[in-house]
Amino acid sequence: MSTLNLETTARIVAAGREAATGIGVAMSIAIVDPAGNLVEFQRMDGAWLGSVDIAQRKARTSALFPMPSSVLGEMSQPGGPIYGIETSNGGLVSFGGGFPLAAADGTVIGAVGVSGGLVEQDVAVAEAVVKAV
Amino acid sequence: MSTLNLETTARIVAAGREAATGIGVAMSIAIVDPAGNLVEFQRMDGAWLGSVDIAQRKARTSALFPMPSSVLGEMSQPGGPIYGIETSNGGLVSFGGGFPLAAADGTVIGAVGVSGGLVEQDVAVAEAVVKAV
Amino acid sequence: MSTLNLETTARIVAAGREAATGIGVAMSIAIVDPAGNLVEFQRMDGAWLGSVDIAQRKARTSALFPMPSSVLGEMSQPGGPIYGIETSNGGLVSFGGGFPLAAADGTVIGAVGVSGGLVEQDVAVAEAVVKAV
Amino acid sequence: MSTLNLETTARIVAAGREAATGIGVAMSIAIVDPAGNLVEFQRMDGAWLGSVDIAQRKARTSALFPMPSSVLGEMSQPGGPIYGIETSNGGLVSFGGGFPLAAADGTVIGAVGVSGGLVEQDVAVAEAVVKAV
Repeated sequence: MSTLNLETTARIVAAGREAATGIGVAMSIAIVDPAGNLVEFQRMDGAWLGSVDIAQRKARTSALFPMPSSVLGEMSQPGGPIYGIETSNGGLVSFGGGFPLAAADGTVIGAVGVSGGLVEQDVAVAEAVVKAV
Repeated sequence: MSTLNLETTARIVAAGREAATGIGVAMSIAIVDPAGNLVEFQRMDGAWLGSVDIAQRKARTSALFPMPSSVLGEMSQPGGPIYGIETSNGGLVSFGGGFPLAAADGTVIGAVGVSGGLVEQDVAVAEAVVKAV
Repeated sequence: MSTLNLETTARIVAAGREAATGIGVAMSIAIVDPAGNLVEFQRMDGAWLGSVDIAQRKARTSALFPMPSSVLGEMSQPGGPIYGIETSNGGLVSFGGGFPLAAADGTVIGAVGVSGGLVEQDVAVAEAVVKAV
Repeated sequence: MSTLNLETTARIVAAGREAATGIGVAMSIAIVDPAGNLVEFQRMDGAWLGSVDIAQRKARTSALFPMPSSVLGEMSQPGGPIYGIETSNGGLVSFGGGFPLAAADGTVIGAVGVSGGLVEQDVAVAEAVVKAV
């Protein structure tokens, strides 16, 4: 699957919802294109309101810098090489839950951002989305 | 249907997509809760990038002021009683394509915003979403 | 020329500068990709500082809505169908001087925005850029 | 060379691009005047989209506070004298890659910001720009 269209996003977001339901946490799930623009967004019933913004920012972060958002976060800690990068690009989120989405040939076709639970829960749900591409 | 949950939004957004496909225009469709926070968003393949933001603002406008966005727009013209209101609330959009969503008993359960075509096309697609609630 | 790379942008911005010099006005010239992200920007010596932002917004406007920015502006006047659209998408500019850039096969490969003179001067310089693609 | 005009910026940005090509990383390079306003910007083909904003912020940071952006960053760490300064001035970037540009007589004539690689790569490319003035 090399194109990020609504058919793809419906399928991969459903995989994320299923993973979220499996761990009993309501999540916000955002899918963006390679330029960071929103393609699909779903907020599960009961998800924290604050997750709406964070899910989108995680996805945008992993589109603008095609790497897991947590990798950026490892380097943006106090004393780290890119400390403070979060204030750029309109506000990045650099903890776990954002991942690039790649086609079978490795081409980046977008990114996913998940928010709503503990960071490891967000990461688990985002990974379910990544695997479903 | 008195609750705006993901099951509802999937159904009503699908109705919007079908209406958009029927008139041959790719649309961005946003559903927000009564406080204007995003619940579901879909950008159809090929929709103008500028529609991503406008669809969400129309929905938010019709949530914060529970009326069709175009009704606000009639009053916000030069010389009108709320001239310039678009700069408030982080940026409203006051032309057609935003509508409150009401349950059978009239309770407002959210709002929809549609963008991607001519205003009358946006309105037609948004009305299809409203009817599908 | 179907790709908007730095080689292309150097050439087409030079064409714009030449046109600006020809009419004796210092201009800011911005080139963005189809998603509205900056690729190249040049401010000619002596150009008004206010032109730096406007050139970029015109280019972004014509990327997000692939049409001349002035066409948007005709529809966004008081009483027009999209009155107030300028507050969306982080701030659009809807008077003349923004144009999509198309490859020979018609594909949109980006957009140009020019600011620094009278609007008709901005348009003339932007058109020189468009023709140089 | 005591004036930062487009002739100068073309030359020094070319020196930066050459350095970037030499290390095999696509960079965004921004040149601003002493007030932090953009004079020239180039995004090399394939540079991360997130570098567009960061290159400009680094340059602006080194114009508003005429010192290497990394010097600001040393003082803005937790416990440091200007902790949190990044949120001021519309958003500064305080890691390496921004430098003031000085004429032969030491007068500050602007600043450069580079982004796209590891911080040490950004710094190396920015230094190539500084030397080319």
